[in-house]
Amino acid sequence: MTPSSPFQPGATVADVGEFGLIAEFGGRFEQGPRVFLGPGDDAALVRTPKGHVVVSTDLLVEGRHFRRDWAGAYDVGRRAAAQNLSDVNAMGGRATALTVGLTLPADLPAQWVLDLADGIAAEAALVGASIVGGDITRGSEVVIAVTVLGECEVAPVLRSGAKPGDVLALCGRQGWAAAGLAVLGRGFRSPRVLVEAYQRPQPPYDAGLAAAKAGATAMIDVSDGLVADVGHIAVASGVAVDVWRSAFTLDEPLQAVGSALGADPMEFVLGGGEDHPLVATFPAGTALPAGFRAIGAVSAGEGVTVDGEVYEGPSGWKHF
Amino acid sequence: MTPSSPFQPGATVADVGEFGLIAEFGGRFEQGPRVFLGPGDDAALVRTPKGHVVVSTDLLVEGRHFRRDWAGAYDVGRRAAAQNLSDVNAMGGRATALTVGLTLPADLPAQWVLDLADGIAAEAALVGASIVGGDITRGSEVVIAVTVLGECEVAPVLRSGAKPGDVLALCGRQGWAAAGLAVLGRGFRSPRVLVEAYQRPQPPYDAGLAAAKAGATAMIDVSDGLVADVGHIAVASGVAVDVWRSAFTLDEPLQAVGSALGADPMEFVLGGGEDHPLVATFPAGTALPAGFRAIGAVSAGEGVTVDGEVYEGPSGWKHF
Repeated sequence: MTPSSPFQPGATVADVGEFGLIAEFGGRFEQGPRVFLGPGDDAALVRTPKGHVVVSTDLLVEGRHFRRDWAGAYDVGRRAAAQNLSDVNAMGGRATALTVGLTLPADLPAQWVLDLADGIAAEAALVGASIVGGDITRGSEVVIAVTVLGECEVAPVLRSGAKPGDVLALCGRQGWAAAGLAVLGRGFRSPRVLVEAYQRPQPPYDAGLAAAKAGATAMIDVSDGLVADVGHIAVASGVAVDVWRSAFTLDEPLQAVGSALGADPMEFVLGGGEDHPLVATFPAGTALPAGFRAIGAVSAGEGVTVDGEVYEGPSGWKHF
Repeated sequence: MTPSSPFQPGATVADVGEFGLIAEFGGRFEQGPRVFLGPGDDAALVRTPKGHVVVSTDLLVEGRHFRRDWAGAYDVGRRAAAQNLSDVNAMGGRATALTVGLTLPADLPAQWVLDLADGIAAEAALVGASIVGGDITRGSEVVIAVTVLGECEVAPVLRSGAKPGDVLALCGRQGWAAAGLAVLGRGFRSPRVLVEAYQRPQPPYDAGLAAAKAGATAMIDVSDGLVADVGHIAVASGVAVDVWRSAFTLDEPLQAVGSALGADPMEFVLGGGEDHPLVATFPAGTALPAGFRAIGAVSAGEGVTVDGEVYEGPSGWKHF
């Protein structure tokens, strides 16, 4: 305990929580002149002598972000890469390279690691990115630390540029993976299409640049949950956002899972965060790029509402 | 088990070993046109529209790469950053940014994490680098995943350029940190100067660029052990290297620890890998940059010798 500590004496990681720690941890770091954009967005931007490099790091921990009995190593690799590639997509950029750090238990099948590599390579190939380095060491559990580098052909789209009057638009599947995860969490394996949506997300990798070129004012990829991530735009931009339920079609598999689990299937859509679609804001009247559809509106104020009311969040199907 | 597996059916991570896995894992990844230098050196080089970005990732796992009772969080942070900054130094480059991924046990003191952050920030400040992003999540043990970005003002120095006739030269302290670690491993806390050398290495951050400008043909930072890392240059360059014991002064603290532990103190110098000095090769007759001293010679052939003989490696003081 030092005098400068913001925490109670003896506070643990569990007491403070990850979000509290992330805020304090990040706040310890001064950003030098080479930093165009520091922590807090989907990725950071570091100045190079003649441009910027986009960089983002994400960790996946076994038992917390994936389970080996819920997805094969290949699919875990696809998801690990997708999650990071999607962060660059959400800046309007294009990923060029990944590094992969792994901690591995001694008794893990060696083949699992190679299948993981194949999954990472396959996903990276979708955007032409290469795996250029990394590190492997023993550990008590599988941890996958992926860092992605990328670049922006046009000005990067931050979370902070949404303006009152903007349209909120979505590109990509939303809610399917969360429903698939809920299915797995109950010990089921079907509907297969939802389980596969969880095991292998399909982020719209061309949509980020298209949105940037079309004049998107703010953008984020959905990884914490649709309403939660729209909330990040609302906070960063200092605006209020309303999301419209009517913008979403509840496809038959979602309805089936909702019935089976006794959940409102709309909650997979509003609360799910495993599909990695993009959410962006555009000035009213913008011709939305291919694949984007309006799902809400930005106004003066603060916070996120769904059909004008505060959204209480999903219940009954959360995993882990 | 797929038909393409290079491993025996049922082989585990322990059976194959990290080095076997790293080779196979890295071999799964094709390197695209944007990759100037892929895995296998101190860092990778990714082409940007008008240059290159240097990138390297290292993991530190509690109980394997550090122990909380052997170094405080601040010093663990210094070491974690130093290890990565040194990789860029070994390319002849300069670090600009770091990302930090952390897995943290729930019962870890929150203050430990902030002290870690302060240590990382202090070390990064030595070269003007900023911590621009990262991720924090729960895990069963502390894992610190650091990725460093950097740039090269002059052509990067790889491991592969050493030529017969070159001089082998070292810049920085070598062997002190290994001796300090050996002391800690026996439950002692002195000589204090060696323990501190372990807890807070002092890589020669200005020496990499100076070596590159002076015409270094190959370079590496010592992190696996002096002879082991010189071996990486020998393999990558297709040459033989002889290291001279006479080039090293065995300072009094090293001699004291050798006596106390019943070890040849020269083995800390030849086998130690915790100080992060630079080893580089230069064409004969090169005026060595400030801080470098000749410690050996390059010739045609293969492998590393010490005073003309195969070096069997240290014994009796290895940690963990």
